[in-house]
Amino acid sequence: MALKLNKQFTLAELATNIGAELSAIVNPNIVIDSIEKLETAGPGSISFCTHASYHKLLETTNASAVLLAESEAETCKVPVLISENPRLALAKLLGLCVPDVSTEAVDLIHPSAVLGANVTLGRNVKIGPHCTVGDNCSLGDDTVLKANVVLYHGVTLGKRCAVHSGTVIGSDGFGYAVDEKGNWVKMPHLGGVIIGDDVEIGSNTSIDRGMIDDTVIGNRVIIDNLVQIGHNVNIGDNTAIAGCVGIAGSATIGKYCLIGGASSIAGHISLADKVHITATSAVSNTINKAGVYSSGLPARENSDWRRSVARFLTIDSMAKRIRDLEKTIITEAVTNNTQNGYKK
Amino acid sequence: MALKLNKQFTLAELATNIGAELSAIVNPNIVIDSIEKLETAGPGSISFCTHASYHKLLETTNASAVLLAESEAETCKVPVLISENPRLALAKLLGLCVPDVSTEAVDLIHPSAVLGANVTLGRNVKIGPHCTVGDNCSLGDDTVLKANVVLYHGVTLGKRCAVHSGTVIGSDGFGYAVDEKGNWVKMPHLGGVIIGDDVEIGSNTSIDRGMIDDTVIGNRVIIDNLVQIGHNVNIGDNTAIAGCVGIAGSATIGKYCLIGGASSIAGHISLADKVHITATSAVSNTINKAGVYSSGLPARENSDWRRSVARFLTIDSMAKRIRDLEKTIITEAVTNNTQNGYKK
Amino acid sequence: MALKLNKQFTLAELATNIGAELSAIVNPNIVIDSIEKLETAGPGSISFCTHASYHKLLETTNASAVLLAESEAETCKVPVLISENPRLALAKLLGLCVPDVSTEAVDLIHPSAVLGANVTLGRNVKIGPHCTVGDNCSLGDDTVLKANVVLYHGVTLGKRCAVHSGTVIGSDGFGYAVDEKGNWVKMPHLGGVIIGDDVEIGSNTSIDRGMIDDTVIGNRVIIDNLVQIGHNVNIGDNTAIAGCVGIAGSATIGKYCLIGGASSIAGHISLADKVHITATSAVSNTINKAGVYSSGLPARENSDWRRSVARFLTIDSMAKRIRDLEKTIITEAVTNNTQNGYKK
Repeated sequence: MALKLNKQFTLAELATNIGAELSAIVNPNIVIDSIEKLETAGPGSISFCTHASYHKLLETTNASAVLLAESEAETCKVPVLISENPRLALAKLLGLCVPDVSTEAVDLIHPSAVLGANVTLGRNVKIGPHCTVGDNCSLGDDTVLKANVVLYHGVTLGKRCAVHSGTVIGSDGFGYAVDEKGNWVKMPHLGGVIIGDDVEIGSNTSIDRGMIDDTVIGNRVIIDNLVQIGHNVNIGDNTAIAGCVGIAGSATIGKYCLIGGASSIAGHISLADKVHITATSAVSNTINKAGVYSSGLPARENSDWRRSVARFLTIDSMAKRIRDLEKTIITEAVTNNTQNGYKK
Repeated sequence: MALKLNKQFTLAELATNIGAELSAIVNPNIVIDSIEKLETAGPGSISFCTHASYHKLLETTNASAVLLAESEAETCKVPVLISENPRLALAKLLGLCVPDVSTEAVDLIHPSAVLGANVTLGRNVKIGPHCTVGDNCSLGDDTVLKANVVLYHGVTLGKRCAVHSGTVIGSDGFGYAVDEKGNWVKMPHLGGVIIGDDVEIGSNTSIDRGMIDDTVIGNRVIIDNLVQIGHNVNIGDNTAIAGCVGIAGSATIGKYCLIGGASSIAGHISLADKVHITATSAVSNTINKAGVYSSGLPARENSDWRRSVARFLTIDSMAKRIRDLEKTIITEAVTNNTQNGYKK
Repeated sequence: MALKLNKQFTLAELATNIGAELSAIVNPNIVIDSIEKLETAGPGSISFCTHASYHKLLETTNASAVLLAESEAETCKVPVLISENPRLALAKLLGLCVPDVSTEAVDLIHPSAVLGANVTLGRNVKIGPHCTVGDNCSLGDDTVLKANVVLYHGVTLGKRCAVHSGTVIGSDGFGYAVDEKGNWVKMPHLGGVIIGDDVEIGSNTSIDRGMIDDTVIGNRVIIDNLVQIGHNVNIGDNTAIAGCVGIAGSATIGKYCLIGGASSIAGHISLADKVHITATSAVSNTINKAGVYSSGLPARENSDWRRSVARFLTIDSMAKRIRDLEKTIITEAVTNNTQNGYKK
């Protein structure tokens, strides 16, 4: 599927628009009217390469030009627009397409949305169909709630935030006491949720309100779909949290962290700034130092995996047998040496 | 709880209706008016066995008849209806019950649903309360959206699809560039979502739209609850995806795959046709061959598990110690042999 | 953020109200008007300690008093209210704060909610905006559905239940037969969902209806956000299920169980009463005995983790090499003993 640009551009014009450079040998007057992926691109289309796995397509593409990093340009058989940051340039390139229509375009506040008392809305706030916004919420300028979003009372969103459908912000945290009969007694949740500027939150994500203090999400944080953020979690500026992540209550995540998909962060622990948790990891202890951290085992053929698991269940015995072997060898060595008459 | 059939059937009639056979010695005129599980079934009820763990109940059930595979019939003390595919026969049997009422029966398009511009609806489409359907969506004949479903703009659903409540289709993918200041810049998401015929999608599932091309889900795909499907994922016909699975962006899943519950599939990888991923597995590399693949470790007593984890954290040292032992043994053997005078 | 109590209390009055005791040396007439965390509390505030990681703050807090267990009181430099159950006492203390407003305060049944036929509502039931309640549902006295909750038909909730936003109860289970062409055939789901009294269910959770019998959740069960509960699951009284847990179809969970966050429970298995599954565990077999059970590996530095995984993939070979070493050692020992002339 070719995406049409909103007008025809020469390669030179495109380069200017997206902050890229033409490689020296390229004709700057080539006309481009669309964006298309490497496999299917043809004359008039500019293409791109978002992942190393597509590099081999650079040798065969029929695109009129390709947007690339300098290091990737060699293997490309067609004209190249060079960018130091090709992903950022692609974002700008996509911004030159005809804007698509979108659900909430017609009404700023959809008539089916329900707003509580004392809600503060900045300029150009958009609230989609079937949203519910509780009392005392505040939404900064240019913030958007897509359809079917729920904000409980006392939720603050900064400027230029986007919250996708099905997401719930401000539900009570999972906090209970146990009474003398062994029954659960709900802890009242009297804190709120404070979210900074330029935060984007995906669909069907849950962010709980704080028990006493607030749950806090910094500026420029990006959160994917189906993420669970417990009560009193604190997330630093510019951190990214991928899909299906669970962050338990009172965890503190630093700035510029990357939390890979399907990972879990235990409650009451801290992650330093610039910690990168790779996908499907389980973090159970505080991490004080920037770096990359991982856990989990990769899938393999079931029969191999079954054998490995069976062995893993005996790993304690394996370790003891190694120790026994080491002891025996030393004893043997001593014995042999003694027997052979050259004890030192 | 006995489920009432919509009329009385003789065993012979039931067999005909559901494509099963009477075992030779059974009286075909036994009258059946209800379906009930093995433990509680009595005269007039037909029962079934959906899992091997219930086989032992075949010896004690008081059902008037039981629907079984031929291989299971031996141990059963009561009359048997034999089917080559008892689960399929049970589906047909349940189809003979009095149909239950359902939420969306009254209105084809519930008046509280919000539909955008240029939405195309096939014959007999049902849209439940509080649904939001964006501009330029298309729903094929007999497709059903249960209550509180959200389709963003540009989502295509084929014929006879069912989408359960809370599911969001077409939200923006989790794609960002990083600018010169280290801040996230959102990638425009200009692709759509294309879903084939006869697809069922559970509740609270999220399916993101493509960035440039579409996210594509084939025909007869079944998807459970709380599943995350990233942007530009491609899922082949007849694949089944169980609950709590996360599939990262640009992954390609083949046809007739089975993805077990709580599994994760990394981005930009491919799974061949007929790949079966068992529950709670983490797939991080392309799988080119049909087969069963697994990862993860099963839960065990906490004290055993703690010991095993402590050992696992030293597994690299264990491997080195084995190597050292092997070296020592060989040296010893050579030394001993030399010392004992029969070096070969 | 200080939480204001609804009036001023002396420490003696507070102690009486929340079932705590004053330590002997404390002035009972100290006046308290607010609750605040240890770091920021000052004169007039009472504080608390919800997690061992905050103990060190007891030495430096400026609170007028702190609510503690007797064993924690020693290290505290300020007046202490002693409770056998400080978490329960804190719940009571929070109950003395000015009640916050909440979304559903105005209407018992919000006018935007859609109710089916034959719905039974107890006294003081509250149903929030954009909820959908199917035919034949029943909600007991004082039960609350927050905004955007969906109950399919035939769902029964007991008294004093709370269901948070985005949660879906009664969607069809993930059950299919396979027909002769290899295509999925949906199993009709004719059972319902029965939920006891005093159950709280978090946001964006999915609970499927039974296929023939009901899905059953006992009294005083607490369930967190983004939890998946499959068809025909049975959960005993007083069990707690943390966020992001998946429970596959027909699993039976006992009473007083604790299921840690991001854990998975396989289908058709049982957990005895008082089983505690720690976070991120995968339970694939029946557990017959109360106790603590775990699986999973904790995150560590990526380079260490990569080395460990590489070794793990050879664990079967490691075990065989240990066996070989053991055999060699025995052979050596026998050989040496024979050669050395003292064979016994």
